Amino acid sequence: MSAHARFPSSVYGQRLARAAELAAAARIDGLLITPGPDLRYLLGSRAESFERLTCLVIPADGTGASVVVPKMELAALRSSSVDDLGLDVLEWVDGDDPYRLAASVLPQSAHTAVTDAMPALHLLPLAATFGTLPVLATPVLREMRMIKDASEIQALREAGKAIDRVHARMGEWLVAGRTEAEVAADIGAAIVAEGHTEAAFIIVGSGRNGADPHHEVSDRRIEAGDVVVIDIGGPVEPGYNSDSTRTYSVGEPAAEVVERIAILERAQAAGVAAVRPGVTAQAVDAAAREVLAEAGFAKEFVHRTGHGIGLSVHEEPYIVAGNVMELRPGMAFSIEPGIYFQGEWGARIEDIVVVTADGCESLNNQPHGLTRL
Amino acid sequence: MSAHARFPSSVYGQRLARAAELAAAARIDGLLITPGPDLRYLLGSRAESFERLTCLVIPADGTGASVVVPKMELAALRSSSVDDLGLDVLEWVDGDDPYRLAASVLPQSAHTAVTDAMPALHLLPLAATFGTLPVLATPVLREMRMIKDASEIQALREAGKAIDRVHARMGEWLVAGRTEAEVAADIGAAIVAEGHTEAAFIIVGSGRNGADPHHEVSDRRIEAGDVVVIDIGGPVEPGYNSDSTRTYSVGEPAAEVVERIAILERAQAAGVAAVRPGVTAQAVDAAAREVLAEAGFAKEFVHRTGHGIGLSVHEEPYIVAGNVMELRPGMAFSIEPGIYFQGEWGARIEDIVVVTADGCESLNNQPHGLTRL
Repeated sequence: MSAHARFPSSVYGQRLARAAELAAAARIDGLLITPGPDLRYLLGSRAESFERLTCLVIPADGTGASVVVPKMELAALRSSSVDDLGLDVLEWVDGDDPYRLAASVLPQSAHTAVTDAMPALHLLPLAATFGTLPVLATPVLREMRMIKDASEIQALREAGKAIDRVHARMGEWLVAGRTEAEVAADIGAAIVAEGHTEAAFIIVGSGRNGADPHHEVSDRRIEAGDVVVIDIGGPVEPGYNSDSTRTYSVGEPAAEVVERIAILERAQAAGVAAVRPGVTAQAVDAAAREVLAEAGFAKEFVHRTGHGIGLSVHEEPYIVAGNVMELRPGMAFSIEPGIYFQGEWGARIEDIVVVTADGCESLNNQPHGLTRL
Repeated sequence: MSAHARFPSSVYGQRLARAAELAAAARIDGLLITPGPDLRYLLGSRAESFERLTCLVIPADGTGASVVVPKMELAALRSSSVDDLGLDVLEWVDGDDPYRLAASVLPQSAHTAVTDAMPALHLLPLAATFGTLPVLATPVLREMRMIKDASEIQALREAGKAIDRVHARMGEWLVAGRTEAEVAADIGAAIVAEGHTEAAFIIVGSGRNGADPHHEVSDRRIEAGDVVVIDIGGPVEPGYNSDSTRTYSVGEPAAEVVERIAILERAQAAGVAAVRPGVTAQAVDAAAREVLAEAGFAKEFVHRTGHGIGLSVHEEPYIVAGNVMELRPGMAFSIEPGIYFQGEWGARIEDIVVVTADGCESLNNQPHGLTRL
């Protein structure tokens, strides 16, 4: 697979045209997109420039996008769709003012919107040059990025299968006596071996570490009887992420653990069952939460039920109380309720699902309940 | 080595106090620092939160810093100096307004300065909540981060030795018939094996790919007679980076190549020789550039001579025309002139140096000239 895998250039051409239309509808004069997932979505570029400005400028009037780029980073940009699409490339060298170059593409005092990843280093000089404070481009771009097309869904499916293969092999590595860090190193190698370009995150939460939802790894040695939360994922080409959590027991689990994780499994299934077009994001959160609340575990479920996924591991839509956004076909997100008993143990079960015409497709299909190793 | 290596907490206490003093002197009411190198410098925290706000708030009046942090990411913060220093921890959960929480630490309509890494996602809501547009904290923080103390210099020395060991082993991997990507994979493993926590960047620019200063790697097969630019580095604990470039020939090089790289070696040495306290950054750039210009290669040296290095691979001071900053003891930066012949080959030689009382110490000590493999 090429180091610069991307979709055909026509895909990015359509996305650029649509972004300009949506910006115009939102009364924004232009979009300013520095490196990050939005740039990858719109151009197929993986530019990573930090201190030198690389910026895609999309005028809302449809006159065509331009890219401001440091001359020395021009070659890397060529692997994106920039040439095929015939975009204007405005190169600059150290000593030039790249902010003025970006401003030259849009009308004076333009009302601009910026990618949420744009660092202050570039945002503040751009605001000073334009003489106006930008807004976030997120409301415009999420309308596009949130609804995955067939190619994107296929990429997410491949990612789901790849991470399922890693979970299926967990017994090779997760054994008593090893440290979480040792297990994580093996999982990391397997994430790459099974088709990801890298391991984006690896959580091995054993015993009481499992009670911290954002614990990553430690030098704690896994003991017989431990409950272990494994939350793993990473991107597959062209950049779409997997993210799946399963909970394991190393040796025989306590009866109480089995009972509680069976309830969690029902909560996760209830979340998945609630997904269909027209249902709100918060209703899906409520469906999973209700099962846990009825069993007396309301306060042990300390986080939202899920997050959108695609080129970013976390993106819209967020499956959380207060989000009244209605689900639409093509949305992809996690359903990942968890229960956490401070100082004791924790459990979480997570699948990525894609909304279909009448429900959803789950992209993760390893057994959901407590897996005894 | 611990996964959370950092300096003793007293170091961070002193840095926080000094940052508040410098902010006050710059007539700033408070500093707002989201995850990134500045947060690691000030707290010893490697938090990486993106969409949920984690923010260190440092009031300039010396009343003590606070940290706004998502409740679910609190445990990770505990490995920093936060507890030892007794900072106020303001935790929040999904549904709360973390921007209001950050604003509560400072006076109304405070004049704030933000870390250059703060993403628009957080900068724009913070600006709206404070009702004022922030400025960059860089002018305040660079005064501190630019001048490395003894512990930081020692960490940079260790990083330099580690990357020198990788260059010393280049003959194991860089052989005709292999692709740049294959060579890079071996180099990446060696970067970690020799003591880095990860490989931050690997450039293998063989043949005409060497003529692009920002080429990374490709599937091009290395051929006998190729000139190859190898530019590599990464962090060692607690986060300080190496960065060193050497140019190799695989088999016997052409006489013209040998001659030109000897000139480049003189240019690099001239840059190093120019470094001492009181000299401007641009004078160091000029010293290296002059040697190449006199030999007729002015236009083949297409980039600046160097960049500062520390917790970031690229930071102040930049060794570039127009930078009249005077060098001071403790500054660390690269001296890396290069010559690039489009469609043919390229070469670059790079050391990290630290300014001493009367000159500089080079942290990279592998042979500088063309190395035949």
